[in-house]
Amino acid sequence: MFEVFETYIQAKTRLTADELQLIRALSVERKFRRRELILQEGEVCQFKLFVTKGLLKTSVIKDDGTESVMRFAAENMWTTEHQSFTYQTPSTVRIEALEDTEVVCWTRDDMRALLASIPAYKSYIDRLIDTILGDVHHRVLMNISYTPEEKYQAFIADFPDIFRRVPLHLVASYLGVSRETLSRVRHAQLRQAKG
Amino acid sequence: MFEVFETYIQAKTRLTADELQLIRALSVERKFRRRELILQEGEVCQFKLFVTKGLLKTSVIKDDGTESVMRFAAENMWTTEHQSFTYQTPSTVRIEALEDTEVVCWTRDDMRALLASIPAYKSYIDRLIDTILGDVHHRVLMNISYTPEEKYQAFIADFPDIFRRVPLHLVASYLGVSRETLSRVRHAQLRQAKG
Repeated sequence: MFEVFETYIQAKTRLTADELQLIRALSVERKFRRRELILQEGEVCQFKLFVTKGLLKTSVIKDDGTESVMRFAAENMWTTEHQSFTYQTPSTVRIEALEDTEVVCWTRDDMRALLASIPAYKSYIDRLIDTILGDVHHRVLMNISYTPEEKYQAFIADFPDIFRRVPLHLVASYLGVSRETLSRVRHAQLRQAKG
Repeated sequence: MFEVFETYIQAKTRLTADELQLIRALSVERKFRRRELILQEGEVCQFKLFVTKGLLKTSVIKDDGTESVMRFAAENMWTTEHQSFTYQTPSTVRIEALEDTEVVCWTRDDMRALLASIPAYKSYIDRLIDTILGDVHHRVLMNISYTPEEKYQAFIADFPDIFRRVPLHLVASYLGVSRETLSRVRHAQLRQAKG
């Protein structure tokens, strides 16, 4: 699994063989079965996870049982519950495997040690957080200004691979659109594509 | 104006008199009139701004002329266009003064110099970014899972002061709810409060 991460990180930043070896030494490899719960509400998120195979879903369950999908993470994507991981506080979200999944991950303290000793890795992670911040702001903009049609098309454009791998009701939840509305949008667009 | 910032920052982190003096030496104080455009789409966002008086609005104008409010910033709040400021790229948003406003601000290079030389300030800014990230994720969750009634109530609870200072149509835009829906929600809640 580490090889997948190695290929990824070498494309993102320049690390010496020693630095990479240190990152590897502190990494933990884990496998999860489909439907396995990786983080439960109330638990502390112990790891920052890099997905090397499979697909994870981060979501919040409301009191009435409805689920809101905050994030999907497939191959070559990071995921964690940032607040819970950073401050070691109870998580308000759950993370679940939607497929059999393999990850490389690091604890908070090990990640801190790596960032303190490898400047290139620190600046990569800073850029990653900038990117996440930009992505989340863009998602807010979509949420408050896009029509359901535009949201659907943006999701397919941004995540074509994930779109093929998750059921439509989870896409609807991620977009904040009702299942019925998303089905209607999808059928209209399929008709249009055929016509 | 700097005194307002000084009171704020001393409550957030411990800085020596020398460190504070350095932060002050690199700061720029600016005043804007109500309705003045502080940042226009396509311009590079030159400053990270701390509001000492007044109220700023960050928004995106769609091709059809509709406005989406991304952020309000009143006294003791920071604002900037993070991507444009960090990478000195053209901004996709505009920032406008909703009231006569006073700010203390820093350029990207000066902010970098301060963060590099004052570890306590760096760790405060890192925590600030963590908080912003948590807030924006919470906003996504509200966007995709709250009813218009819940969105309205959350806004009043989170920003009671800003709620009193901005017109309702800007609150509607911020929440991604139509003006008509928000008026209906507001009237229903006012009736309920009276009843």
